[in-house]
Amino acid sequence: MVTAINTVWVAVAGALVFFMEGGFALLEAGLVQAKNTLSIVMKVTADVSLGSLVYALAGFGLMFGFGNGWAGWTGFFAHGPVNGPASVPVWVFWFFEMAFAVAAISIVSGAVSERMRFDAYLLYIIVGILAYSLAGHWIWNSQGWLNRLGMEDFAGSAVVHTFGGFSALAAAWMVGPRTQWNGGRTVFRPSNLPLAFAGTFILWFGWFGFNGGSTLNAFSPLVGPVIANTMLAAAAGGLAAVLWSRIRSGHYDAVMAINGVLSGLVAITAGAGYLPVWASLPVGIIAGLIVVEGTPLVTRLNVDDPVGAVPVHGFNGLFGTLAVGLFASRGGLLTTGHLHLLAVQALGAGVVAVWAFAVTAGALGLVQRLTPLRVTASQESIGLDWVMHGSQAYAQALEGSASVRQPRR
Amino acid sequence: MVTAINTVWVAVAGALVFFMEGGFALLEAGLVQAKNTLSIVMKVTADVSLGSLVYALAGFGLMFGFGNGWAGWTGFFAHGPVNGPASVPVWVFWFFEMAFAVAAISIVSGAVSERMRFDAYLLYIIVGILAYSLAGHWIWNSQGWLNRLGMEDFAGSAVVHTFGGFSALAAAWMVGPRTQWNGGRTVFRPSNLPLAFAGTFILWFGWFGFNGGSTLNAFSPLVGPVIANTMLAAAAGGLAAVLWSRIRSGHYDAVMAINGVLSGLVAITAGAGYLPVWASLPVGIIAGLIVVEGTPLVTRLNVDDPVGAVPVHGFNGLFGTLAVGLFASRGGLLTTGHLHLLAVQALGAGVVAVWAFAVTAGALGLVQRLTPLRVTASQESIGLDWVMHGSQAYAQALEGSASVRQPRR
Amino acid sequence: MVTAINTVWVAVAGALVFFMEGGFALLEAGLVQAKNTLSIVMKVTADVSLGSLVYALAGFGLMFGFGNGWAGWTGFFAHGPVNGPASVPVWVFWFFEMAFAVAAISIVSGAVSERMRFDAYLLYIIVGILAYSLAGHWIWNSQGWLNRLGMEDFAGSAVVHTFGGFSALAAAWMVGPRTQWNGGRTVFRPSNLPLAFAGTFILWFGWFGFNGGSTLNAFSPLVGPVIANTMLAAAAGGLAAVLWSRIRSGHYDAVMAINGVLSGLVAITAGAGYLPVWASLPVGIIAGLIVVEGTPLVTRLNVDDPVGAVPVHGFNGLFGTLAVGLFASRGGLLTTGHLHLLAVQALGAGVVAVWAFAVTAGALGLVQRLTPLRVTASQESIGLDWVMHGSQAYAQALEGSASVRQPRR
Repeated sequence: MVTAINTVWVAVAGALVFFMEGGFALLEAGLVQAKNTLSIVMKVTADVSLGSLVYALAGFGLMFGFGNGWAGWTGFFAHGPVNGPASVPVWVFWFFEMAFAVAAISIVSGAVSERMRFDAYLLYIIVGILAYSLAGHWIWNSQGWLNRLGMEDFAGSAVVHTFGGFSALAAAWMVGPRTQWNGGRTVFRPSNLPLAFAGTFILWFGWFGFNGGSTLNAFSPLVGPVIANTMLAAAAGGLAAVLWSRIRSGHYDAVMAINGVLSGLVAITAGAGYLPVWASLPVGIIAGLIVVEGTPLVTRLNVDDPVGAVPVHGFNGLFGTLAVGLFASRGGLLTTGHLHLLAVQALGAGVVAVWAFAVTAGALGLVQRLTPLRVTASQESIGLDWVMHGSQAYAQALEGSASVRQPRR
Repeated sequence: MVTAINTVWVAVAGALVFFMEGGFALLEAGLVQAKNTLSIVMKVTADVSLGSLVYALAGFGLMFGFGNGWAGWTGFFAHGPVNGPASVPVWVFWFFEMAFAVAAISIVSGAVSERMRFDAYLLYIIVGILAYSLAGHWIWNSQGWLNRLGMEDFAGSAVVHTFGGFSALAAAWMVGPRTQWNGGRTVFRPSNLPLAFAGTFILWFGWFGFNGGSTLNAFSPLVGPVIANTMLAAAAGGLAAVLWSRIRSGHYDAVMAINGVLSGLVAITAGAGYLPVWASLPVGIIAGLIVVEGTPLVTRLNVDDPVGAVPVHGFNGLFGTLAVGLFASRGGLLTTGHLHLLAVQALGAGVVAVWAFAVTAGALGLVQRLTPLRVTASQESIGLDWVMHGSQAYAQALEGSASVRQPRR
Repeated sequence: MVTAINTVWVAVAGALVFFMEGGFALLEAGLVQAKNTLSIVMKVTADVSLGSLVYALAGFGLMFGFGNGWAGWTGFFAHGPVNGPASVPVWVFWFFEMAFAVAAISIVSGAVSERMRFDAYLLYIIVGILAYSLAGHWIWNSQGWLNRLGMEDFAGSAVVHTFGGFSALAAAWMVGPRTQWNGGRTVFRPSNLPLAFAGTFILWFGWFGFNGGSTLNAFSPLVGPVIANTMLAAAAGGLAAVLWSRIRSGHYDAVMAINGVLSGLVAITAGAGYLPVWASLPVGIIAGLIVVEGTPLVTRLNVDDPVGAVPVHGFNGLFGTLAVGLFASRGGLLTTGHLHLLAVQALGAGVVAVWAFAVTAGALGLVQRLTPLRVTASQESIGLDWVMHGSQAYAQALEGSASVRQPRR
């Protein structure tokens, strides 16, 4: 009976987290130029297709298998013992966790959009899933070394978002900026913001599965606070980013509304089950400010991140992990005066960020010996959709007569 | 055990109702002109962001707190006693009800689209949530004065839709018509009907959470009939509106398909748990006819409602509330011959309509002393997206070469 | 208690399957030309509106009523005995099954897009729902003659997809190709591929309800394997189709990514509850190859299928039904060496294909005596949106100045 209830809870939550891939696809498709729209959607589709296979064959065992503090070596393809929840069937647990793994690497697809080749990206997916799974082992497997130090990451501000955000930073840095980027001075207008909002609402919707399902137990008294934290941090993040962008730029910025909501969600993810609900308000507000201020900071690092993946997931993943050390009902610095948890959180977040950056940079260094990471400048000018996928995202009445001349291949 | 099952049921239903905000955003984005698309999406994003905060801090206590027949004064931020279901955790119940509150005011965003300023709308959101919460107290809190009279509103044809629809009527009237509206003679073509259909399907999908979750109890024998009523009234409403529009205008009208489906959903919402399933057919059909005939009626009232919010939610909210008095298995005029319930429903629906209209008109009267309700005529010509949000919804290959000249701010 | 848990499971799954209609609408809207976008969305809206009414009034009783091996004659409008699961309320079960019925006929809408008249299509819907319900009786009702022979079709590779795919083949053949089709030599570019991907992700998301909910029982140990099979077959199908299209055409084809994912889903649907999880990989891969090779095959049959409904649903529906005979843990040829099950599956799949083709061809032959099946060539040139629905899908900044001249009706 308990198993049946938790099966429903985790399976439905897993479907919601899976659906977030659709959210990523539409969000990123809306934010890039029209000529690179298919390219980004195809990358997200590859994240979930290739990524789920890699996670089934290797990642799940590395992450939730029994082994040592650094890696698991049982539970591959859900065979053999798995260090997971007792009352959730193993393939349902796999499904839920698989959706997290592909979410982590989908963060990267946005940061390298508009110039990275599809084939090179496929190789990244394999490395990304494996590296994610190891970081997940350290924090979420009770054998993991950061878990044993007492690190708390409820639904993955560190495991998923810090990993994804710093992997995205490394990938965007390795691939290099778009040819016309010009140190961030060129403005590339998003091609389809309504589509980006559609993606944002799907992500927000899915996040109730992401955080709510992370109880892995419908009997937990945490379900209510987790959901309320998730909702209110997102709301506060979106509102703070929009109002702050108004002060900074003179208008209520739509991309900042999107990235503010997502930042609030990212930042509350580590603490959703540990923070009192009032704390979702400062966490969300700070997350909204971080994304507005952090976006130009990435540019100053001379990294071209077309969709803001680094400030949303990387910076707010770090902040969210630290926020547990500040606001947690048990052990938070501001709530209990103890510093130990904050120190552990800082160590864990830092380790994940460094690991994600290093393994991504290293892996792409190897990949570029096999195949170029990016298209040529002239291909970039034509657009990746035509060059890599032989098609265009929009046709006919959707296209301006001047702007589309169909190149012959 | 019972709590765990109801937690799953209401949390998932709440996520579905939350997702309806994405539906509102896409529906309205598709129905307005391209130059005002971001503006409407930003308003819906504000509905859910600011609205959820206001509902957490104040609305929930006013609505479900203990107090008197007019308002509650406990349960703010889910602290203290709440007059809600025993077997649903309080924050889960808050989440479900929060999504209803933001749905109610999102109805208004469409009616004032293409001319209302974003900042003035933010002030409306605060007032709207508070006024909604009071009306909700009267009907859904067992202490409420209409509840005590025996009013039946299962999932909110009155509380949500009549409130939203008549608040929309007042807001559209206070803001005034679009500059080029010309008494309804100007045809503003919807910019992106596929997006509007995407929103409609999301709303329809979410409505199974809206009505189904309103049992607040997965053990209720009503779940099946509620879902069937919801499905069949929507189907009958859509079909009736399309066929009736064919007779009236000579074509199978797409906007009427959308608004017919939504009208069927609105009209069955009060009765989903009280009506025998066969009654969903006449209720849906009548709702579909009401929206086709009611849309020009709003124009004749000299009110410019770009998306049809008033006929869909206002007129069919009224009809749906009355339909309980006509068709309810217990107490319906047509089913049992008793008139009492119908009279109570008429009183309640009328009270909500008058309250929503009066408080909205009054509040916007005050707001316009602080800040203009609408953009200037020249700003309206440029479009709200550029004026208020510094951007455009669609760029590059999506835009016709002639129609977009990028104004300098 | 058991009933409450299964009510939640099947009601949520039913809502997910319902949402697949939104997926069909967006998928097909994105794949057709812009001038025929509303037309296809209106057809899908009619599938679910008219289709659900027909299924309530007649289909459900024919399919799940008690009767003989060929048809049921109880349970119409969910009154009287129904041969369904004991622990799911009847209207919840109806809702779940209704969503399957409208999915089956929605497959057809894509195949006849860009030329079939809306009114003729409404007549098809009625016939399609009734014919589907009879086929469903044969296989899913324990009284059905194919069921008694031992046919296994877990969630409908035969009942839903083979039926829909071969009904689509007959309909596309009866309606004839688009005027400019020219034996398949004319390339009609999809108007909005991001929208098609949005639809695909919605379909994929909904499929977890489609297959997962088909356990009709949250206590079943099959839930985990069903979900894993569904996920991995889709992933393998998408990946195989993209890589195979790269080898065949030189690019990573976006439409093949979409149709590969859908093909994997279609093919695993019959076996999701019967196959060991490893078998999802060969099933998915083969399905991906079938769709790449099967798409030109339909053209060689001189049938114009604008969205690939026949290879995705027809060919892979057949393959998925046969795959149970090959890979099933109990009785599969490759897993147990027994041939009996494969023979029964082949018989059943063939019967459904022939039945769907024959009844559709026959019915459309009758319909065309009442009303033309297709628009005239000049109407086709203008586009069905304007001709049948008096509107266009996209307006203003979305349209190229050259390509849209608004015809006067």
